[in-house]
Amino acid sequence: MSNPLTPQVLADPVSLTRALVDIESVSGNEKEIADAVQQALEGCGHLRVERIGHNVIARTELGRAQRVVLAGHLDTVPIADNFPSTMDEKIMWGCGTSDMKSGTAIALHLAATVAQPRHDVTYFFYECEEVEAALNGLRIVGEQRPELLEADFAVLLEPTYGAVEAGCQGTMRARVRTHGTRAHAARSWLGSNAIHQAGEVLRRLEAYQARQVEIEGCRYREGLNAVRITGGVAGNVIPDACEIEVNFRFAPDRSEAQAEVHLREVFGGYEVEITDSAPGALPGLTAAPAAEFLALTGAPPTAKLGWTDVARFAALGIPALNFGPGDPNLAHKRDEHVEIDKIVAGADLMRSWLS
Amino acid sequence: MSNPLTPQVLADPVSLTRALVDIESVSGNEKEIADAVQQALEGCGHLRVERIGHNVIARTELGRAQRVVLAGHLDTVPIADNFPSTMDEKIMWGCGTSDMKSGTAIALHLAATVAQPRHDVTYFFYECEEVEAALNGLRIVGEQRPELLEADFAVLLEPTYGAVEAGCQGTMRARVRTHGTRAHAARSWLGSNAIHQAGEVLRRLEAYQARQVEIEGCRYREGLNAVRITGGVAGNVIPDACEIEVNFRFAPDRSEAQAEVHLREVFGGYEVEITDSAPGALPGLTAAPAAEFLALTGAPPTAKLGWTDVARFAALGIPALNFGPGDPNLAHKRDEHVEIDKIVAGADLMRSWLS
Repeated sequence: MSNPLTPQVLADPVSLTRALVDIESVSGNEKEIADAVQQALEGCGHLRVERIGHNVIARTELGRAQRVVLAGHLDTVPIADNFPSTMDEKIMWGCGTSDMKSGTAIALHLAATVAQPRHDVTYFFYECEEVEAALNGLRIVGEQRPELLEADFAVLLEPTYGAVEAGCQGTMRARVRTHGTRAHAARSWLGSNAIHQAGEVLRRLEAYQARQVEIEGCRYREGLNAVRITGGVAGNVIPDACEIEVNFRFAPDRSEAQAEVHLREVFGGYEVEITDSAPGALPGLTAAPAAEFLALTGAPPTAKLGWTDVARFAALGIPALNFGPGDPNLAHKRDEHVEIDKIVAGADLMRSWLS
Repeated sequence: MSNPLTPQVLADPVSLTRALVDIESVSGNEKEIADAVQQALEGCGHLRVERIGHNVIARTELGRAQRVVLAGHLDTVPIADNFPSTMDEKIMWGCGTSDMKSGTAIALHLAATVAQPRHDVTYFFYECEEVEAALNGLRIVGEQRPELLEADFAVLLEPTYGAVEAGCQGTMRARVRTHGTRAHAARSWLGSNAIHQAGEVLRRLEAYQARQVEIEGCRYREGLNAVRITGGVAGNVIPDACEIEVNFRFAPDRSEAQAEVHLREVFGGYEVEITDSAPGALPGLTAAPAAEFLALTGAPPTAKLGWTDVARFAALGIPALNFGPGDPNLAHKRDEHVEIDKIVAGADLMRSWLS
């Protein structure tokens, strides 16, 4: 099959978005789209292209003083009656339009068309962002070939609706457990009810005053919430165990270790098991390419509250921000769509920055 | 196959217990044991025997002023490596030894051997007590042929370890629900956490002062407990629903309707759905045959706290108590057993009462 990513399509970020959306690439099925992207970029004399798994890395080697990364994932969540794309004058609908083929298209468009960027650029197109971290292409390449991602600054083109969202908050999940003694419900005083004991845990969550903190002008807002509760043995038994799963979203001025200490303080006296954790990322807006980029956008950056792959750049010591045309509230939805204007404006801004 | 319930076996409540235990009769499989019981009783000239399903009803028709019911179920919970029975000098082990073939054996022994009881007696042997109420033989016969169970007093030979346990408490299950609003856990303030709201429900349960009430010298002790809690959507979502299942054990001076009113008061402001309910039974120890029976036992009656089929007699207007040789704490256990002495003593006491 001929490559739909023709030079004409690559020259227009809107057509390119549509072409990418119309290559089905639900996580785990990125071969076709990665092949198309690799082939399109190998036609560009100014790029050195490498393929690792279904990750495509294309670099300029111009000897510039600074290097920036533009990154976008190639996969989508499962299709939900929203493939292939549809479009009118203002809107393009379809799986991946917002999250994040419109952002990925901007990066691919710039890779193909900006032969002499003012900073060296590493374009990074990767697989398996929407599934478990073990498969994440950015994580895998970052671990196996960190030199490929070395840079002074990174932009991840995840949906931000055209705003700059800096850094990201960390996330930690823990299980808080209470223990009691079973007894027949007809003689409840012979037992000790673990679900009743969980009331105190919920009381602490209810009373919890979540911290807000400003870092480099970005306001991060933490949150600590029960996301699951289970307890009970049978309808006639006093339960001897109850488990509350909590999710702590923490500002990037806390490390994971500090976040854990905080959780253990909040739930002092209870069994706490940390089950899952990912660090936040400081906004890192002071690097020169970041400052230039911010100046161009003309709007103050806001804090990224959700966890994103910018934290993986942070872990590599690379300041990173999120900037993309999609609306994050539409991600993973059946009616996922993107505004044409946002694609055009995002591409224009990034082209100005790099040219 | 010849009937193991020979006249010689029927004459000895211990041998009879063992013979009944060694006829496997897990709920739903009572045909063989009901056939054996029916055949054994049809050989007794002083009884009128009727068979309905796998329920056997045998009545004396002596024109006595009072009629009493002795009732025992024929079924057991599933076997758990405890079939057939084993025995030493003091103990008989096996499925159903405690719950309640030793009690049933006492009734069957008296039916076969006491030809001239001082009260008319209805012996009632029934199926499917250990499974859902819809199949319960006592319930079915009580509804279809209530005249067969008409009496002034009933003894249910459920395990009480040789004590008199009077009446029984009622039981009601309800689901208490909280409702919130979903949001991404990274922006938790946009949602409302239904699990946190459940904290107030658990607080009320924790603070609940269960009532104790004395009725006819028996102290009933109520209890209100969470027996199950569930809530949660996903690890990154503020949950919009939480459900707490509570079990209310209420003294028999409350009707089911009153118990429901009480529960709705306790959980005022929350959605409450009653899912399951069974009324209690007043002890009814003032009927003449009951008073005689109590005088013979020489020990004060205690309140039956768990729900038993005595409530079905109460629903028919018949005062009833629980009295059996088994230890209720051994019911449904792998090491279920009964003490030989308790079988002999129980049979002696009941024979004295009826003779």
